[in-house]
This record gives sequence, structure tokens and C-alpha cells, in this order.
Amino acid sequence: MGLELYLDLLSQPCRSIYIFARTNNIPFEFKHVELFKDSVLGKKPAAAASSAERPRTGPSNSEGAGKISLLKKVPALKDGDFTLAECTAILLYLSRKYNTPDHWYPSDIKKRAQVDEYLSWHHANIRANAPKTMWIKVLIPLFTGQPLPSEKLQEVMEGLSTSLKQFEERFLQDKAFIIGSEISLADLVAIVELMQPVGVGCDIFEDRPRLMEWRRRVEEAVGKELFFQAHEMILNIKELSNIQIDPQLKEHLAPVLMKMLK
Amino acid sequence: MGLELYLDLLSQPCRSIYIFARTNNIPFEFKHVELFKDSVLGKKPAAAASSAERPRTGPSNSEGAGKISLLKKVPALKDGDFTLAECTAILLYLSRKYNTPDHWYPSDIKKRAQVDEYLSWHHANIRANAPKTMWIKVLIPLFTGQPLPSEKLQEVMEGLSTSLKQFEERFLQDKAFIIGSEISLADLVAIVELMQPVGVGCDIFEDRPRLMEWRRRVEEAVGKELFFQAHEMILNIKELSNIQIDPQLKEHLAPVLMKMLK
Repeated sequence: MGLELYLDLLSQPCRSIYIFARTNNIPFEFKHVELFKDSVLGKKPAAAASSAERPRTGPSNSEGAGKISLLKKVPALKDGDFTLAECTAILLYLSRKYNTPDHWYPSDIKKRAQVDEYLSWHHANIRANAPKTMWIKVLIPLFTGQPLPSEKLQEVMEGLSTSLKQFEERFLQDKAFIIGSEISLADLVAIVELMQPVGVGCDIFEDRPRLMEWRRRVEEAVGKELFFQAHEMILNIKELSNIQIDPQLKEHLAPVLMKMLK
Repeated sequence: MGLELYLDLLSQPCRSIYIFARTNNIPFEFKHVELFKDSVLGKKPAAAASSAERPRTGPSNSEGAGKISLLKKVPALKDGDFTLAECTAILLYLSRKYNTPDHWYPSDIKKRAQVDEYLSWHHANIRANAPKTMWIKVLIPLFTGQPLPSEKLQEVMEGLSTSLKQFEERFLQDKAFIIGSEISLADLVAIVELMQPVGVGCDIFEDRPRLMEWRRRVEEAVGKELFFQAHEMILNIKELSNIQIDPQLKEHLAPVLMKMLK
């Protein structure tokens, strides 16, 4: 049994793994997980406790990422009887196992430390802010039936602006990529996160020419076709607004979603 | 010029680096930074913008971590003209440069992936919850002059309990350490974070025998004397309550601190 990757391309960490595997010609079986159908969001909370071990993937996928991911979420990797969760861990595992080109995670001790530094900073900054735009603009209105006050989006956009300023000034500077002239895992992890606001109509690249140029370089480094294929779903996320949600589910989830944004 | 580490042992990431460097006999110059004296917390917000480039360390340390850390916070590493921020990045850099024993970050590709998996999970779970206990029990009362309602602490403790349950069931299981029979960076990063609540009187080990046994094993693996030396300040954190804070500073910081816990 070969490498299996459990992914939903609506999720930004999943996209980074998908792009990394595809651009490096790593052979894998794409196990499609639908986060908004059968995951935490799609299960009724009353049943959640007893169904913790049940697969979260759709009925067409009987193995399911629920059994695969230790932490019951995507992305998840299965390689024989070895399973792994967490985006960074999966990317590093793939880079080591398939011996991908050095620039992704340089063997130079200082450059490698710079990739690690970005990957760590990313969690509490870009990752903490960018995805909230999708919650506010699309998911919360979808589940609660009403939009959030505009101040809420403004607050999130201010937090994101602060992170983007740090990203440009401290990490990107005047370099082509975060660690210099070649793309690394740091750029990949950053770009997929920054495409989330774009998908919901908050184009953070619009007034940031340096960021936009970096985005173009990343697109070219992984291949434009692959880049847009991976981002097709998020760039059409607004279609989600037409989905009919079970009213009982809405009732259960609305307070949970609101709490997430407190 | 040798290795310099800019640390404040009140900060949990700083303690992990301190313990790692000392237990592995890595020679370094300890540059003491006082977070609650000259840092973000200790600067008046009105002056903060213009002083962004100024060192944040005390007057006795004229070089200052402010110049060292790209991100203007501790921990920070300086090795010749190379500077590095972020705890995980610093630990990995030290393990590579000083070729520390394999168990800290195993060369076995699967065990290494398990360390990476924990280090990534840690950010949004243990790290997101445990430090809030210090803010609620010590720092906010100190700066605002009044305790927070007990519901606030209860809410944080519930979030921490959920993380600890995952920590025990998914990561620790029935093993001696997170990745098996030997200590790794994952255990070190976890333990320093979990000592933060203990210091402020929320002994999370009390009713968790499996967690308590793991803590004892970690203490022994790094050496009990070193462990308690590193934790001396946090275990006496309540002495901070006697400090007199500038009333103007209090006025500026109270709303900022309250927002952090929203």
C-alpha cells in the first residue's frame, strides 16, 4: 500500500501539502475529505462524543481520515501503517522520505533555521488571522443565517495587516523568497494561508506590491496551473452560500461558531 | 564571539532553551532579559511606536535582545552575526550545530515526524491555553488592580483540560515519553508550558497521575536540580504581586491586557 494523503483543498494546510507533493512528483493516492460535510462542522454536537472514532470522510470513502489522523482532522498522511497529522510534520516527512530538492528545506544550518523560524512564527500570526476572514465572510453567515457586524471584519483585517507588515519587513524584506533566491516550505505555508482572504473577497495583495510580486514568484516556482488548480475551490468559495444547511445543525453550531471568533 | 542566548526564565520557551543548552553542556553566554521590566509590558504604549528599534533589555545590558531578535521578543539567539528568534527554531538549530544526542530529535524518519507533529500541535493547544492561567491569576490583577471574575479562569481551565486529555490520550498514551522510551524536544517544549499554571496555583498534575509520572521522568532525564533551577522564578511568581506598578502604566495597559483574554 502506497502513500495516502487525506485532504480537503478548501483547507489551506491541505493545499500546501497537495502542491508540495504534486510539484515534486511524489506519487500518492488522493483521499478526498469533505470538511464541510462530514467533519466537526458536519456532525451534530449531540453525537460528537460517541462518534469520535468514526471516519469523517464521505460514504464513498470507507476507510476515512477519522481513522487515519491521530487528531481527527485534515490534513492526514498514511504511509503503510504509519499515520501522521499536522501540516508542517507532513511536509517535512515528505521532504525527507522523497529527498526533495534542497531549497525546500535547506541543509545549510542557518537557512534551515530561517525556515523553522518562519514556520513557528506563522502559527500565532498569519495562521491566527487570515482564516478568520472566511469564517466572518462566508461560514458564519452560512450557519447563523445572518452577517456579522462589519466591525468584526475590520478588527480581523487590522490584526492581519499587522501580521502582513511583519511578514514583509522581517521575513520577506527585499528578497525573492523568505530565505533568499529560492522557494522553501516557508513560502508555501505562507501563500496558501494568504489565499484564504482572497477567496472571500478580501484581496490583501491589492495594495501590497511587494507581497504581490512575491505571490507571482511563488506561483511560477510551483507552476501556475497547479497553483490555480489547488486554489480553484477556495476561489469559488462563495458558491457555498447557496448550500441548504439542516436547520437543527444551524441551531447547534451558531453559538459554537460565534465563540470561535470572540 | 561565542553563542549568546537572550532569555527570561519567567517565559516558558526561554526555559526550554535554557534547560536544553545546560543539560547538553552547550557553552553559551546567558544574556538576561527582564520581560516585565523593559519589554512590551514595561514600555508605555505612547512611546512604543518610536522605540521599536530600541533594545528591550535592562540598562546593564547595552546590546539588548531588541537588536538581536528579529521579532523583538525572547527567546533570541545570537551566534556571531547570525540571529534567530522562535523557540522551536532555536532548539533545532542548537541540536544540529552541537550535534546533541539523537533522542532529542531522532534521525529515524518516523520518530522525527512524531516530534514535528507534537511541536506543531502544541502551538494551538497547550501553548494556547496554559499561559493564560498566569495572565488571569497574576498579571491582570497586578496591572488592573482587580481580579478577573472566576468564570474567566474556569473557562481557561476547561480549554486546558481538553488539551491535556488529548495530550495524554493521543501523544503520551502508555509510553514513558512522547515518542517512546527516551526524552525528545517534544517533552521539553510541553513540560515548560505545563509548569506555568503550577506556578500560579493551578496544579494541573494533581489529579492526573499519568501526567505526573511523565513529569517526574522528564525532571529526571534533564536533571532535577537543573529543572528546579530553571523553574525557580515561575514557582515564586506570586512574589510579583508585591511590585508597585506606575499608575499611568496601569491605566494604559489594563485595556490591552483585557483584550488579550477576550
